[in-house]
Amino acid sequence: MRKIKIIAIGKIKERNISLLIEEFQKRLRPFCKLEILELKDEGIQKESQKLSGYIDNTTYILDEAGKMLSSEEFASLLKNIEGSLTFIIGGPDGLDPKIKTKSHLISLSKMTFTHEMCRLFLIEQLYRACMINSNRGYYHK
Amino acid sequence: MRKIKIIAIGKIKERNISLLIEEFQKRLRPFCKLEILELKDEGIQKESQKLSGYIDNTTYILDEAGKMLSSEEFASLLKNIEGSLTFIIGGPDGLDPKIKTKSHLISLSKMTFTHEMCRLFLIEQLYRACMINSNRGYYHK
Repeated sequence: MRKIKIIAIGKIKERNISLLIEEFQKRLRPFCKLEILELKDEGIQKESQKLSGYIDNTTYILDEAGKMLSSEEFASLLKNIEGSLTFIIGGPDGLDPKIKTKSHLISLSKMTFTHEMCRLFLIEQLYRACMINSNRGYYHK
Repeated sequence: MRKIKIIAIGKIKERNISLLIEEFQKRLRPFCKLEILELKDEGIQKESQKLSGYIDNTTYILDEAGKMLSSEEFASLLKNIEGSLTFIIGGPDGLDPKIKTKSHLISLSKMTFTHEMCRLFLIEQLYRACMINSNRGYYHK
């Protein structure tokens, strides 16, 4: 089964966002092994050191300057990568620019969202991608 | 005070999304008079008839083919329009293409989201726009 890791900096403080993320985690269970690793929000430099250990050629950083994909293109990306995939979401202070040069950058929107909302959007799109890749409808949900 | 109307087709079934939207409505109160008008999900043709009464040159329809704006550009749009503004979010079946030709189209993302998530994103961006326009920080929230 596909493994997906989301590495996120900082906790989710908004309870309703947490609950929505948990709901999508539940829905994703039949499709992939999803792990959410929450790192402490302790400043860009320390975060950068910790994150660098996780970066390889299947790591995608969420960044406003990243490539924008449609949901179908995002689903293809998931389909075409064998094994595991890692997504990194920066914290309230953003991410070290050095880290960004070592990884693929993707963007969910031209708009800026809080890191909490980013995590929600990403997990919703992961679920949508799994629905697209297994030819199931989701648009009416 | 600025008036903003969101016309949305169909109810929000996911309770946590409703609660988050309510939270942003509350936060928006000092900045604008926001009205959310929920129209019945009753098929594209009937919806189209009802919606056409609301469309004028300050109506923005959320559509994947619309113009993508950054949060700053979205804030400028809000700042530059005097009086009231209307946003339309289609329902699970989408919107009548005829309606789309009569209005401005904006897109929150290249990705597809459910109409429920769209409403949440829009209201979050309205709040962010108000924060930008009043020079307040929000990025760390």
